Amino acid sequence: MNLIILKPSEVDGQGRAVLADGRARHIRNVLGAKPGKQLRIGMLNGAFGTGTAEAIDKNAVVLVCEFEDGLPPKPRIDLILAMPRPKVLKRLWAQLAALGVGRLVLLRSEKVERYYFDSHVIDPDCYNPLLVEGLQQARCTHLPDVLVRPLFKPFVEDELDQIFGGHMKLLADPTGDRRMAECIGGLGERQRIVLAIGAEGGWTPYELEMFKERGFELFGMGERILRTDTAVVGLLAVLSQ
Amino acid sequence: MNLIILKPSEVDGQGRAVLADGRARHIRNVLGAKPGKQLRIGMLNGAFGTGTAEAIDKNAVVLVCEFEDGLPPKPRIDLILAMPRPKVLKRLWAQLAALGVGRLVLLRSEKVERYYFDSHVIDPDCYNPLLVEGLQQARCTHLPDVLVRPLFKPFVEDELDQIFGGHMKLLADPTGDRRMAECIGGLGERQRIVLAIGAEGGWTPYELEMFKERGFELFGMGERILRTDTAVVGLLAVLSQ
Repeated sequence: MNLIILKPSEVDGQGRAVLADGRARHIRNVLGAKPGKQLRIGMLNGAFGTGTAEAIDKNAVVLVCEFEDGLPPKPRIDLILAMPRPKVLKRLWAQLAALGVGRLVLLRSEKVERYYFDSHVIDPDCYNPLLVEGLQQARCTHLPDVLVRPLFKPFVEDELDQIFGGHMKLLADPTGDRRMAECIGGLGERQRIVLAIGAEGGWTPYELEMFKERGFELFGMGERILRTDTAVVGLLAVLSQ
Repeated sequence: MNLIILKPSEVDGQGRAVLADGRARHIRNVLGAKPGKQLRIGMLNGAFGTGTAEAIDKNAVVLVCEFEDGLPPKPRIDLILAMPRPKVLKRLWAQLAALGVGRLVLLRSEKVERYYFDSHVIDPDCYNPLLVEGLQQARCTHLPDVLVRPLFKPFVEDELDQIFGGHMKLLADPTGDRRMAECIGGLGERQRIVLAIGAEGGWTPYELEMFKERGFELFGMGERILRTDTAVVGLLAVLSQ
């Protein structure tokens, strides 16, 4: 935990927060903090700041919080991900937040089993703590917006342009001739990017056509066929370079 | 499984291999292969080829194998990794093989718990099947060479130059001013690279000094602090671009 993340509801009018969960244990046992100790904090979806430990006992830690002006920029990469197997997605949540994703769309695709959408891993009560864990690891405050879309066509036809109209649009596919570096060369630093990543086995020709019609550029990833989680982490890392 | 990997001992003088494990189940149940079906195969640490199913029953699959001339190139990236937590390393094995690592050194560092080296995850009987799983996923045949070094100083002083003498040497550290892209810009395609990645918390100043004396260039990875497994996958992906 490299940053203590607080929710707006946890900080009272005097800037005081009482922590009694894993964060308190971390401050007490891992950091071995004593009263007066200053800690790096961040408001969820908000500013960074400093929390001064006012009181520490075995039940709770009281922090007096001061937040800096200005908000850290939102990650410039958004992701459309064919819904992975629930086990894989569970492992991915913290990494997605840590690598920095502005918005994540979990989309049905022909090669995705319908029952994946019945899994508890797409319940905010399951994924929000994992996302916050990733933010606390990577020292960021922006919680990815998550959209779950169990129908491919209505999302692509009715929502995609609205949400990602001004984005540079990229899709990883073995038929893409260009490498990703060529596609993003010369992009402005603030240009937002949306990256579509298919299931194992990729998007179907129909799905690919739908994406292409909406301006997605295809790029190849070399000869290796990667597992979804490996590909997602690798591509986000390459895009953040 | 996108490639069926065979070991030299499994193929007889007539090029015949009898499979009776997960590969046979995959050929029978997932691929639904019938006799005559041609499958993409690879010899472990060797050439690609074609296996023609000669017989398929509930106990075994018999393949008649023909291998191509020429060997796929060895991955050009080697890795020196401060020994991760066993749980993390277990998840990493298949991904390391899939992304392509020529040689992997698992090294003790000040910030690594000594007992990690007692774990069964560094037993070849544990990791070899996981590495092969990664190769079969990514369609490669090169099994990473694994060296386990529970003492930092003797490895760095006595072995490092010998093993990695001609390599471009890189080390990920928050004190590095340059970005990785600058360090590797203009490298020849065949230039081998060795990348050193520390534990959570990084290398100690003493360890960093030892690496620098041996020609390692430090590069920064931006402001985010990533978990070891996220960092390893991300950096390998960036280097393979």
